[in-house]
Amino acid sequence: MNIEHLLSKGIQATPPSFVRGILKAASDPEVISFAGGLPNPVSFPQEDLLNSMEYIVKTYGSSVFQYSITAGLPELRQYIADRYNRIFGLTLTMENIIITTGSQQALDLIGKVLLNKGDGVIVEKPTYLAAIQAFSMHQPVFYPVELTEEGMDPNQLEKALQNPVKFIYAIPDFQNPTGLTYSAKNRERIYEILKDHTVVLIEDDPYGELRFKGERLPYIGAGRLPGSILLGTFSKTVTPGMRTGFIISENKELLTCISIAKEASDLHTNIFSQYLIWDYLKNNDLDLHIAKITELYQKQAHAMMDAMDRYFPPTVTYTKPHGGMFLWVTLPEKISAMSLFPGALAKKVAFVPGDPFYIGVKHANTMRLNYTNADCETIEEGIRRLGDLLKEQSI
Amino acid sequence: MNIEHLLSKGIQATPPSFVRGILKAASDPEVISFAGGLPNPVSFPQEDLLNSMEYIVKTYGSSVFQYSITAGLPELRQYIADRYNRIFGLTLTMENIIITTGSQQALDLIGKVLLNKGDGVIVEKPTYLAAIQAFSMHQPVFYPVELTEEGMDPNQLEKALQNPVKFIYAIPDFQNPTGLTYSAKNRERIYEILKDHTVVLIEDDPYGELRFKGERLPYIGAGRLPGSILLGTFSKTVTPGMRTGFIISENKELLTCISIAKEASDLHTNIFSQYLIWDYLKNNDLDLHIAKITELYQKQAHAMMDAMDRYFPPTVTYTKPHGGMFLWVTLPEKISAMSLFPGALAKKVAFVPGDPFYIGVKHANTMRLNYTNADCETIEEGIRRLGDLLKEQSI
Repeated sequence: MNIEHLLSKGIQATPPSFVRGILKAASDPEVISFAGGLPNPVSFPQEDLLNSMEYIVKTYGSSVFQYSITAGLPELRQYIADRYNRIFGLTLTMENIIITTGSQQALDLIGKVLLNKGDGVIVEKPTYLAAIQAFSMHQPVFYPVELTEEGMDPNQLEKALQNPVKFIYAIPDFQNPTGLTYSAKNRERIYEILKDHTVVLIEDDPYGELRFKGERLPYIGAGRLPGSILLGTFSKTVTPGMRTGFIISENKELLTCISIAKEASDLHTNIFSQYLIWDYLKNNDLDLHIAKITELYQKQAHAMMDAMDRYFPPTVTYTKPHGGMFLWVTLPEKISAMSLFPGALAKKVAFVPGDPFYIGVKHANTMRLNYTNADCETIEEGIRRLGDLLKEQSI
Repeated sequence: MNIEHLLSKGIQATPPSFVRGILKAASDPEVISFAGGLPNPVSFPQEDLLNSMEYIVKTYGSSVFQYSITAGLPELRQYIADRYNRIFGLTLTMENIIITTGSQQALDLIGKVLLNKGDGVIVEKPTYLAAIQAFSMHQPVFYPVELTEEGMDPNQLEKALQNPVKFIYAIPDFQNPTGLTYSAKNRERIYEILKDHTVVLIEDDPYGELRFKGERLPYIGAGRLPGSILLGTFSKTVTPGMRTGFIISENKELLTCISIAKEASDLHTNIFSQYLIWDYLKNNDLDLHIAKITELYQKQAHAMMDAMDRYFPPTVTYTKPHGGMFLWVTLPEKISAMSLFPGALAKKVAFVPGDPFYIGVKHANTMRLNYTNADCETIEEGIRRLGDLLKEQSI
């Protein structure tokens, strides 16, 4: 049965994920993949998690297997509130927090709650490809604002805000895809611009804990812009496979709507995983665990940068992240990273070409490289292969 | 910040869940709740699951904690295909199956893939309240078709199909909320009607395995209507807390779109839970486990029916389910079950009034009672309290 005429306009407007589309090719064990956003398995505290599993099944019994409440496990939400209050001087309670099925679900829920067809959404240029996916389902109008080394360009932001915009989606720390971090000055400037607008600021912060250089900076909106939403996740610090993220907001009306949208989406997030992560956090030093991860990621990031200095031509530039999982390579003008992709795969190395991180851009001269999921030797070998490809193409 | 003007029309059209709204009241340990749809904790094979947890962490290591593919664990999908092929004579492969974050997510994904504002959706009258929620987000036009003791009324269905309808949502086995099951003859009649229409039939089957009387009947569409979708879940047979459901379809185009919608919704379902349930199923006899559950539920259903015969006035009637988790009570005409609800809570007993199971009906004279999550003595006591309430109200 041909069902094309039955399909919604929303799904027709939603691009498939380039990253998910090449998962099969990239998971060939011979391919060195810089394409995914996979944490290094060292970030999974397997033994500690197994201990927690045994403990929670024996201690909480059927509660860890039964249906549960939509907002999420109160104890885990309290832990999150306490941690953010301690680190950022916020005054959150567990009522400010909804557990989501990964951060991705938070994007889905926000789209559902805020977007009608044609509504404006301000995003960074470039931005996270799966955020474009989640929002595209609602057929909004995207207003991309250039991302500079300092963060979102404030002048372009002011201009974009002249449109009927529902929300701004930003990743201020170790941005995906660029690895860039907003400066303190830029954050303050954006706050000053936004405080007079009735618009929702979404700060997506999956990577902020993964800083290996410099000091953490305050959030732009959390704690002071009343309509702001902060997103977090345990995917990069404990385990992504458990799909446990969270939404933080001090706006009760927004949280009520997000909760209704979540009921309709999956009733609640896996409660076993919530007990598990809560018990793990209670019994282990998360900061110590994160320190181990960032020490590793720093080495891997440097291995990649050193290799690029060695194997890439000087006309190719890249960002120098202070944390997170990605860096962003810029090729000479008019060189399409997408066109290079098949040649890279032939050499058994994968990356994500820039195109899917932009709205309506084809043949961008940029690419995203992930450095967290391969050891330093493998990273060097992968960059060497990419360097060979660039030379063969006379770049 | 007042954000009302920022809210989408979709979320404004989505009713909050009555069941989720009263979860707090219903979870008061003094309240006997027939309101939820909670499986009896006996249906959670805790010891076996703990054994599987230990095994999968030791055997598959980081794979059970890492990001994974959107469609779900191939081994679990193969298990599902094999089981349905064996029981129903289908010819499924794992490519026909997508694992979802509970059955609820399947409803969300189907809405995303098929519905534009104003599109027609045929539902049973009454139908599952969280399906109304999931579809309402897209502002469709609902065409409710009367649910009789035989199933969906075929004449009303034919009439409803004269409208521009995208899909039909049906729960043919032990329907939620009524407990009714479509007869073999009715299934055949519906198949005959639908085979000439280009419309998607969704058969939602969370309860079919829980039959305690009679023989399982064939599906209406699965295996013969090319655009049909079958939904299943491990929530009622293994554990709901792990949020593991699945979509079965033989329509590739539909599955491709559902997969893209799932990428945008939560990337993939909790992979640890998928490994866990697969390993549990591989090492245990599911049919034997289900037999224990249904034996228990049969006793509980009879305890409820016997108590109603004893304590309810003869003007109150109810359905006699052959399986599943619910039965449906009809009060005398013009008696609003919703109006009785506060009095019931005051007597420390909870149910779900009929209203949220209908489109736009207020003060229905019906209520849903769940019999799976209380022992027989508690069920009798709860029904006695409801009987007292009915008497006090001179019903």
